Amino acid sequence: MTLRWTRDGLDAGSDGVLALPLNLLDNLLRGVGQVMFQNNSYTGVLFVAGIACNSWVLALAVVLGAGAGTLVAAWLGAKRDLLRSGMFGFNGALVALAVLVFLTPSALTWACALLAAACASILMAALLVHQPRLPALTAPFVITTLCVFLAAARLGRLEPSGLLPTAELPQTATVEGVVTLTTLIHGVFTGVGQVFFQNSICSGLLFVAALLVASPRAAVMALTGSLLGLLVAWAMGAAEPAIRAGMYGYNSALVALALACVFLRRSPAGYAYALLAAGITPFVAAATTAALAPLGMPALTLPFVLVAWLFLRAAPAFTRVQVQ
Amino acid sequence: MTLRWTRDGLDAGSDGVLALPLNLLDNLLRGVGQVMFQNNSYTGVLFVAGIACNSWVLALAVVLGAGAGTLVAAWLGAKRDLLRSGMFGFNGALVALAVLVFLTPSALTWACALLAAACASILMAALLVHQPRLPALTAPFVITTLCVFLAAARLGRLEPSGLLPTAELPQTATVEGVVTLTTLIHGVFTGVGQVFFQNSICSGLLFVAALLVASPRAAVMALTGSLLGLLVAWAMGAAEPAIRAGMYGYNSALVALALACVFLRRSPAGYAYALLAAGITPFVAAATTAALAPLGMPALTLPFVLVAWLFLRAAPAFTRVQVQ
Amino acid sequence: MTLRWTRDGLDAGSDGVLALPLNLLDNLLRGVGQVMFQNNSYTGVLFVAGIACNSWVLALAVVLGAGAGTLVAAWLGAKRDLLRSGMFGFNGALVALAVLVFLTPSALTWACALLAAACASILMAALLVHQPRLPALTAPFVITTLCVFLAAARLGRLEPSGLLPTAELPQTATVEGVVTLTTLIHGVFTGVGQVFFQNSICSGLLFVAALLVASPRAAVMALTGSLLGLLVAWAMGAAEPAIRAGMYGYNSALVALALACVFLRRSPAGYAYALLAAGITPFVAAATTAALAPLGMPALTLPFVLVAWLFLRAAPAFTRVQVQ
Repeated sequence: MTLRWTRDGLDAGSDGVLALPLNLLDNLLRGVGQVMFQNNSYTGVLFVAGIACNSWVLALAVVLGAGAGTLVAAWLGAKRDLLRSGMFGFNGALVALAVLVFLTPSALTWACALLAAACASILMAALLVHQPRLPALTAPFVITTLCVFLAAARLGRLEPSGLLPTAELPQTATVEGVVTLTTLIHGVFTGVGQVFFQNSICSGLLFVAALLVASPRAAVMALTGSLLGLLVAWAMGAAEPAIRAGMYGYNSALVALALACVFLRRSPAGYAYALLAAGITPFVAAATTAALAPLGMPALTLPFVLVAWLFLRAAPAFTRVQVQ
Repeated sequence: MTLRWTRDGLDAGSDGVLALPLNLLDNLLRGVGQVMFQNNSYTGVLFVAGIACNSWVLALAVVLGAGAGTLVAAWLGAKRDLLRSGMFGFNGALVALAVLVFLTPSALTWACALLAAACASILMAALLVHQPRLPALTAPFVITTLCVFLAAARLGRLEPSGLLPTAELPQTATVEGVVTLTTLIHGVFTGVGQVFFQNSICSGLLFVAALLVASPRAAVMALTGSLLGLLVAWAMGAAEPAIRAGMYGYNSALVALALACVFLRRSPAGYAYALLAAGITPFVAAATTAALAPLGMPALTLPFVLVAWLFLRAAPAFTRVQVQ
Repeated sequence: MTLRWTRDGLDAGSDGVLALPLNLLDNLLRGVGQVMFQNNSYTGVLFVAGIACNSWVLALAVVLGAGAGTLVAAWLGAKRDLLRSGMFGFNGALVALAVLVFLTPSALTWACALLAAACASILMAALLVHQPRLPALTAPFVITTLCVFLAAARLGRLEPSGLLPTAELPQTATVEGVVTLTTLIHGVFTGVGQVFFQNSICSGLLFVAALLVASPRAAVMALTGSLLGLLVAWAMGAAEPAIRAGMYGYNSALVALALACVFLRRSPAGYAYALLAAGITPFVAAATTAALAPLGMPALTLPFVLVAWLFLRAAPAFTRVQVQ
């Protein structure tokens, strides 16, 4: 067996008893890396490390979720290159992680988490067929996960872990708490950490490092997006605890990363467009959170998906912005 | 006039004073049959019989609803073959039935029921134009009916009959009641009966017979779907009264029937795909019910529509599953 | 500089220091006129006058909103003819107006109103790209505005002005109040006035005059739609204060105007189709209002958008109705 370390991962060749499992592992780690658009298994390893520094169980869930999503798609006969680049892994990874964070773990919860991760691949396929020119982003993750959480209100053996918001009618907000320098520093890094539901500076730093390995520009844009989201939320009077926990950062980070580094051609207007998108994301995040309040559901990355789809869909109407 | 009994209905020819009404009646019964995908007026007769064994008024509503839907589409100039095969009838049939089950009957309610049945044909046409390669299924029925029920919260002369759920915020479920053998037997057949809102074994049996007349495979898949939905719901801790009433069966029955007998090519992978779809339907049913709880709305066949659309939309991305 | 007054507006030529600002102003007024489908700056002036007779501030907001929407689209490089005919102005105009009606005005609210008006142009562009054969109507306005209002539930510095409905679970309606001749006369004209949130006969009359200037047929259809909506709502037992305030008129007026005067070819069947659409709009309005009740959100012109999209989408399936 000849192991070959390439710039974006491992190639274990096609000989030897370990080739298949090693290639599969590389594949799953690319799937984890694709959560932030990186077809890079080193990035995947560092993402898993960033989760493992809080919980080994959740780190395992991420890898197994990517596995469930990838294997179901492979069995049904999805395209090789999509499988290989982790496109059927990242939604499953997030689904399994979210289910095990927000529901009380048990054998049945694990089974549901992996079944849901597999179903995310069906959704991914449906979006690939339905809108071939618009990326699916994390929409399959959001839809599948909300479906499982909502089902817990009717299925007695799915028990919320206490992290889901309480169902309540939306009320008028007041400015809550005082934003200090600590809030800002915390917020910028947890804003990256919350992409994987990690309310921790340590995870945020490891995730930034993971992006750095693959693309320094991606790391810069993720931090810029997180900071911009935080500043807009602060200016508009969002609650301090939410800002500190990065709740207004992660969607903006993903929007900035997706538009400026992945889907738009580099140009001054393109950057301005991406920053406008990242700048209005906190409004959409606040609105989505309020809209889901009567159901007691978290917004997950729904604001990111909505804003990114909107700006990508609109781009062809404008001559100054070009989609790659 | 020459009456000709064909394998799937009646042909009254084009002569004689009774030809037109008899052909129209045959047409409406095909419309009723299309609720479970059968272009067959004998199936339609047995569906009507299954409803009539509970209520003559509702049996009449089904036929008149199919009539309102078909006639409006005919007047506006829809395609002949779509009209003839009952494609503009089945949503109207379900709309009129649902309105008269869930709202207190009065002259005004009947008028609204038939107007709504007519509007379901506009929705059907819009879906045919919008997504020519994806079947509309019962989406027009679900949307139209929910619209009428929601309107009852603002229009004083539409009065709910007491069968609509009370509007409430979703709460955590607990395992409720004990599932016995009676629950299972009841549940499998009411699971078929609930396709027409009939919580009755007798209706369920007549509906299975109606399917048998047209296609034994359809009858088997409907029962298989109903059983699978029930078993998954039981395993996940759904409430016993809901299981017994077939609330977790009818959507799975329709999903299994639609995928395995109508829209996918027969193959082992096709069956596995259809059963995966039917197996996750109880989760989607639980989620939809919870999501509609703050509005006090029933899920109707929305879970079926969502799951069937998802799996049909995704199929072209997979080489091992073929759409017919 | 040569000023030229044309049938539908002002042409200030391309010379002279005042040419650019005068052409821009003409452009913005066309944008305001497009709220009721009139590419006509005199109509725009009379719409602004109809708002100014209640509040100068809101009249200013309408023009500035149209400006924000148009300028952002122009900067990003939208098509000239779309810009010139006000297609990037009308949604921005409504957004800025709605934000300043429903939120307490402040410097920050004004900034948000104009930012939101600009974002409505991104949504407009996305809809133009996504559904090139279906008009965007006021969908960008509805989505953007609901997003801002919902965000107010999380962002402490956006304060509702007290006109937003209180969030509550929908309940069964009773017939409320007695409809008199005054109700009807009031209702028909406020039904037109409510297109710009003006609960005032005077505004309604000025808006009808604005339509008359551009097209007498448009004025007649708007009043017909408003009357039809009111009568259906009355027959179904809607609350008298809502009928009097034109809440069941403005969506029907827009539907009748859009279908009969703008998008369908003139024919008896076309008119019948448009009136059927306007006639069912009160049901959709009641349903939408009830569906948004748990979020405490107003329906705005969502019912109009939904009904008009439905009937336009369905039209190609029917031979007797032709889309222009």
